[in-house]
Amino acid sequence: MDIAEIIKTISQDARQAAIQLANLSTSIKNDMLFEMANALVDGSDWLISENAKDLKMGAEKGFSPAMLDRLMLDSKRIKGMADSLREVANLPDPVGEITKMWKRPNGLMVGKMRIPLGVIGIVYESRPNVTADAAALCLKSGNAVVLRGGSEAINSNRAIASLLKQIMKELSIPEAALSLIPFVEREGVLEMLKQEELIDLIIPRGGESLIRFVVENSRIPVIKHYKGVCHAFVDVSADFNMATEIIVNSKTERPGVCNALETLLIHKDVAPAFVPHISKTLNSLKVELRGDEFFRKYSPGAKEATEDDWAAEYLELILACKIVDNMDAAIEHINRYGSLHSEVIITNDYSNSQRFIREVNSSCVLVNASTRFNDGGQLGLGAEIGISTTKLHSFGPMGLEDLTTTKFIVYGDGQVRV
Amino acid sequence: MDIAEIIKTISQDARQAAIQLANLSTSIKNDMLFEMANALVDGSDWLISENAKDLKMGAEKGFSPAMLDRLMLDSKRIKGMADSLREVANLPDPVGEITKMWKRPNGLMVGKMRIPLGVIGIVYESRPNVTADAAALCLKSGNAVVLRGGSEAINSNRAIASLLKQIMKELSIPEAALSLIPFVEREGVLEMLKQEELIDLIIPRGGESLIRFVVENSRIPVIKHYKGVCHAFVDVSADFNMATEIIVNSKTERPGVCNALETLLIHKDVAPAFVPHISKTLNSLKVELRGDEFFRKYSPGAKEATEDDWAAEYLELILACKIVDNMDAAIEHINRYGSLHSEVIITNDYSNSQRFIREVNSSCVLVNASTRFNDGGQLGLGAEIGISTTKLHSFGPMGLEDLTTTKFIVYGDGQVRV
Repeated sequence: MDIAEIIKTISQDARQAAIQLANLSTSIKNDMLFEMANALVDGSDWLISENAKDLKMGAEKGFSPAMLDRLMLDSKRIKGMADSLREVANLPDPVGEITKMWKRPNGLMVGKMRIPLGVIGIVYESRPNVTADAAALCLKSGNAVVLRGGSEAINSNRAIASLLKQIMKELSIPEAALSLIPFVEREGVLEMLKQEELIDLIIPRGGESLIRFVVENSRIPVIKHYKGVCHAFVDVSADFNMATEIIVNSKTERPGVCNALETLLIHKDVAPAFVPHISKTLNSLKVELRGDEFFRKYSPGAKEATEDDWAAEYLELILACKIVDNMDAAIEHINRYGSLHSEVIITNDYSNSQRFIREVNSSCVLVNASTRFNDGGQLGLGAEIGISTTKLHSFGPMGLEDLTTTKFIVYGDGQVRV
Repeated sequence: MDIAEIIKTISQDARQAAIQLANLSTSIKNDMLFEMANALVDGSDWLISENAKDLKMGAEKGFSPAMLDRLMLDSKRIKGMADSLREVANLPDPVGEITKMWKRPNGLMVGKMRIPLGVIGIVYESRPNVTADAAALCLKSGNAVVLRGGSEAINSNRAIASLLKQIMKELSIPEAALSLIPFVEREGVLEMLKQEELIDLIIPRGGESLIRFVVENSRIPVIKHYKGVCHAFVDVSADFNMATEIIVNSKTERPGVCNALETLLIHKDVAPAFVPHISKTLNSLKVELRGDEFFRKYSPGAKEATEDDWAAEYLELILACKIVDNMDAAIEHINRYGSLHSEVIITNDYSNSQRFIREVNSSCVLVNASTRFNDGGQLGLGAEIGISTTKLHSFGPMGLEDLTTTKFIVYGDGQVRV
């Protein structure tokens, strides 16, 4: 069989298995996840030896230390993967939840019930823990999952998947509900993205080039997350200490992630007092500031910001800074340059706080809190499979619920339409 | 400017207008819809004269009487359009609804708030009333809308759109929030389907070939509805009179629509008693029966069903009939041949009713009620923009809520991530 046929067969088997997965009881799914966690820990030695093959290949290919680190498994990381599986097991099962129910004038009881999406495809890179994390979230929400990890982690991914599948076999859960595409060729991804009759959703996890490749080649709906150009707006009434703490946390707590702050907007009326204060603090934390003319007036050490800076996702200790006339100008700037990810207003003005919440339509809009809270775990969803910056189906961090849909259910006693 | 540039400009203007539309108050949106309804009625004579041009073109092109009828506007139909606009005005506004709110251990209040999707593209055929209906649903839910009707109704659609836009102008609502692509060439559709940076969702309304054309050519997410192969399963414990009424209503009340019954599954234990009964009733209503061998044993006048009949959406007075061993076999048949549209069980067995509701994952699953209830109005959503048979974002009839998404909102008092 060629690649196309094998991937079609994997997808067909996944679709068949999805019918059974949709009807598994919560307790069986949870038992499975706890057993899988134990199997990973028990198999640590073998996982580490398989991972060593990938590390060796990577070193031969000249991977950077950072890339090799992302790829590496040790017993601590394996324990972390196992803990993630247990965390998913402990989350509520969304399947079967009746989200609403109402009565029609003719006596029909109409409701909406959560059901799995069916078959979910995950296309990812590097970190082998995604194999376990993504599988756990898809299976717990009653979906079958087809995984396609990067060629650089193929041995690690295969080993993890085989340990997880062994547990499914022992518990008589159809193993086809968890498949790993066995090819390292890019053709494997392309064939997977053509299975629109068999796979319901594709979630890419990785760098922007991977995501763009998937979006451009997929006939299956894709939920994606391109980048996070996150903004903070310091309003006239902001408490300077609070503003400073939030800006420092948003920018520096972990600069390399998508919910880190990239652009600071400051109301012109507080600029003379606040800009020197925040500049000093950020400079002491080695944050490079790039400001417009007005900002640089009060922060002489700042570099000049260009048009590119307003759209930049730096992912490092650089912050674009701009003085704005008022909140309207701040919102207009966000609409123009933002990426619909996370925006915060720092204010003590009731009316402005409400307007910002209402009028800024990013995936997470905050008042007086760090942008770093736009994260499934931090917002209380439990583990997340990604953060969507497109509005269809899911917007923001995606938890278990976002891997389901709802069907209408109708209880009648003989009603017909007249 | 060429077609591509004009369509890009229309889409850019729509995106800009969408920002303002998202923040319109409910009362202004409702005023607009009531005024639009009046404008259509007041403009009846002109609409009818513009419509006459389309009818003349259609007659010259040799349209069938049914096609010309779909295209035709008279004062009664215009009044119907106006009533639909008023109905949408009277529906609750989904925008701004907080669907959930919870408190985190650190004191953050986290919620989900409904917001518009942004810009919605509607690609449709024939019936000019879609111009008003679709515009009303999109605008009421705070979205901008780009309409592309069929070339056969171009004069009617232009006239309707211009009356609606006149009201927007009078009320200082950005007119760019409602655009009609002015080209009759198919290139116009193709260009529209390429605006993935500007249009958030495409909803095709029309025949299967139009829908397939849109799906195959769109880079924008599409919510689609292919066909309805709806099933009824008559269980052992079914009340025969109730079963007969539901089957007759589902099949014959309006056979040409997607929620009409196409396949009847009967439990083998009731076949000897029920098949002669239902056959006689359906024969008297001129329904052609096509049965498997077992069915024909008790319904000698029935034709032989072939494999094609199990997958057929007849949309006329024909019914495929099959005897099944039990409910498992019924569900298996539905999974194999169904189109995820509407399925009903007729039963008085509690356990089977619950299992059917749980295990059949179609967009609407009913117990003891006609499949004809799978309709936005009948289920209580108000006007619908279509019925989705794909699971992502929306599944089943789509009302105003389905033209929105939710963003996360976070109220803090200085929290940072530690």
